[in-house]
Amino acid sequence: MNSFFYYNPTKLVFGKDSLDEVKDLIDNKHKKVLLHYGGGSIKKSGLYDKVTGILKGKELEIVELPGVESNPKLSLVKKGIEICRENEITFILAVGGGSVIDSAKTIAAGVLYDGDIWDCFTGKGSFNEALPVGVVLTIPASGSEMSSSAVVTNEDGKFKMSIEHDCLRPEFAILNPEITLTLPNKQTFAGIIDMISHVLERYFTQTIDVDLTDKLCEATLKTIMNNAYKLKEDPMDYDARAEIMLSGTIAHNGILGLGRQEDWGTHRIGHELTALYGTTHGVTLAIIFPAWMKYVYKENISRFVQFAENVFGVLKAGKNSEQVALEGIKEFENFIRDMNMPTSLPEYKLPTDDFELIAQKCTKGSYVGRFKKLYKKDVINILKLAK
Amino acid sequence: MNSFFYYNPTKLVFGKDSLDEVKDLIDNKHKKVLLHYGGGSIKKSGLYDKVTGILKGKELEIVELPGVESNPKLSLVKKGIEICRENEITFILAVGGGSVIDSAKTIAAGVLYDGDIWDCFTGKGSFNEALPVGVVLTIPASGSEMSSSAVVTNEDGKFKMSIEHDCLRPEFAILNPEITLTLPNKQTFAGIIDMISHVLERYFTQTIDVDLTDKLCEATLKTIMNNAYKLKEDPMDYDARAEIMLSGTIAHNGILGLGRQEDWGTHRIGHELTALYGTTHGVTLAIIFPAWMKYVYKENISRFVQFAENVFGVLKAGKNSEQVALEGIKEFENFIRDMNMPTSLPEYKLPTDDFELIAQKCTKGSYVGRFKKLYKKDVINILKLAK
Repeated sequence: MNSFFYYNPTKLVFGKDSLDEVKDLIDNKHKKVLLHYGGGSIKKSGLYDKVTGILKGKELEIVELPGVESNPKLSLVKKGIEICRENEITFILAVGGGSVIDSAKTIAAGVLYDGDIWDCFTGKGSFNEALPVGVVLTIPASGSEMSSSAVVTNEDGKFKMSIEHDCLRPEFAILNPEITLTLPNKQTFAGIIDMISHVLERYFTQTIDVDLTDKLCEATLKTIMNNAYKLKEDPMDYDARAEIMLSGTIAHNGILGLGRQEDWGTHRIGHELTALYGTTHGVTLAIIFPAWMKYVYKENISRFVQFAENVFGVLKAGKNSEQVALEGIKEFENFIRDMNMPTSLPEYKLPTDDFELIAQKCTKGSYVGRFKKLYKKDVINILKLAK
Repeated sequence: MNSFFYYNPTKLVFGKDSLDEVKDLIDNKHKKVLLHYGGGSIKKSGLYDKVTGILKGKELEIVELPGVESNPKLSLVKKGIEICRENEITFILAVGGGSVIDSAKTIAAGVLYDGDIWDCFTGKGSFNEALPVGVVLTIPASGSEMSSSAVVTNEDGKFKMSIEHDCLRPEFAILNPEITLTLPNKQTFAGIIDMISHVLERYFTQTIDVDLTDKLCEATLKTIMNNAYKLKEDPMDYDARAEIMLSGTIAHNGILGLGRQEDWGTHRIGHELTALYGTTHGVTLAIIFPAWMKYVYKENISRFVQFAENVFGVLKAGKNSEQVALEGIKEFENFIRDMNMPTSLPEYKLPTDDFELIAQKCTKGSYVGRFKKLYKKDVINILKLAK
């Protein structure tokens, strides 16, 4: 196990009545709040009215910034930063899924950053403070509600990149599984692939002697998969929605990665697909993760054997390690297909002739990933396996 | 799953060089620190010199309060409160195991409480603030380093009781597995039973639809047991020490209980044994938990079947539920015996003629526990099963 530092002060409020807690969770010292959200779905569902009702009840002045799209854009972030500065806003409430939260987090850091916040994504700059952000979560997927990172797309050049700092962990996160009951299947299952990937990016490590977090990862993976099948059967299953919602948070709040070197190569490749084609994040992971697995499993077969056995119950008897490892990867692909998600680029009608460009943008002359360092040629090979 | 609120801002610093972080973790605004510890062991090991060296390096004035015994005493807590007030101390550093941490936490709350802090244990009073406490952990067991509770013994009447509030979560906890390498077996295995019990008090619940936390509990239990056997084989196994140390923290930081009604009946009975006979906490749990299991399993056989199958791999084929459940309990008893811990009162030479008194003090005319509400007669029956 590696040494680590862990700090996660996000207040998690979970359950059917959790939204009511917002009134106590936003400190009374705040006078103006930026209400940040996406499109009309929270208005249709009545969530918008409930949230604004609570904020008005606190006599908070609300400045609205709607319009967050999937894969949140830097241009809107910059607009948010301006609005916050002009209005002397001291608190940001994000009502939505990962895109809204990540946009809010980046605004929160940007307001206090003296310069172009994009510099902090490219490594030219750094930050260590941010406005407090509260979250009302509507889509279980990104885990951003309790995580220390944010991912934003710079339309200028189609770069999808991330920032990370403990100051980006939201002050609170409201998780009411009820409001996820009516999520379209597509969002539900893309979200499920996303949270599974957050576990896998931690699970596939070369760090040895990580028994506890291995088992915690396997526990979370199995819970997500079991409950994903329940939701496929019945999207209105509250208990399954609750398991999925909590699992999405646990998958990415850092606990599962304690003391481990994490990978994140698949995410980096997936981000480039999104940057180029606007592909839903979860879809990119569904396509890339199996290909990544097929490309890297020989780097540490015993870990893939463990994955096959402990997550999918693959039996070892009469098989060699390679067969067991490959059977586990096959089972994972089967799961993805069972969720009606694609496991190859053509299945989702994505181009297969930009591999050079994707690999170049992704590796930037260096490498991505840690389980196996992926240089440009490796990324191209993985993309070929996804063809 | 039940609704819940979770907030845990303890900074966890883990690894061989983690102690060095103390200098940055104690805010510079503090001028005087109470250094709270037990006896001479931290002096013998050199830990005392290292810690005081770091504090002096920060030009902090150190006021020492050693002398914390197992099952920390209210009298020393009161002395600590006085010292802190007299010296205007604003930070408490606990160097030790659960007893030292719990004593420090109670002092921290007591300093700011206007009245007798014991009133907050009995329910006559309540508190919602405490001085910040930092922890350098020497014994993995209590999980107090990241928990919201503290247990103290009032010698006057032999009461061992607890307080709970999020403000009791330490500001930071330093976990260096290296300093646990030389722990005597007795402390190692009593600590292991303690952390296992913290998981079991959460695992045995009547709350339904708690898939994720069920699996996280099972993962933690299996990790602790696997690594306990490794330490029995080789107490100098750093990696096993690291797994045990992290598991002890995870077992009691609240994550495993999210959305579950917890039990804590066994702890309440165990506390009375300690209050009367001074018995090591982990020993009382080793004795009472199997008896409790035998007494309550019929309340929810399927949960005990799950325990048997998922934690011990008991096979169901050809057995009825009761047989599987009882086999699981047997396996747990076997584990305790493998750790050279007692599973009955006589084995540890404890009296068996105070059952009425214990049951009375424990239930106070009401009940303890939640999985099955235990009234006085139930506690007596459980104690009889431990005879």
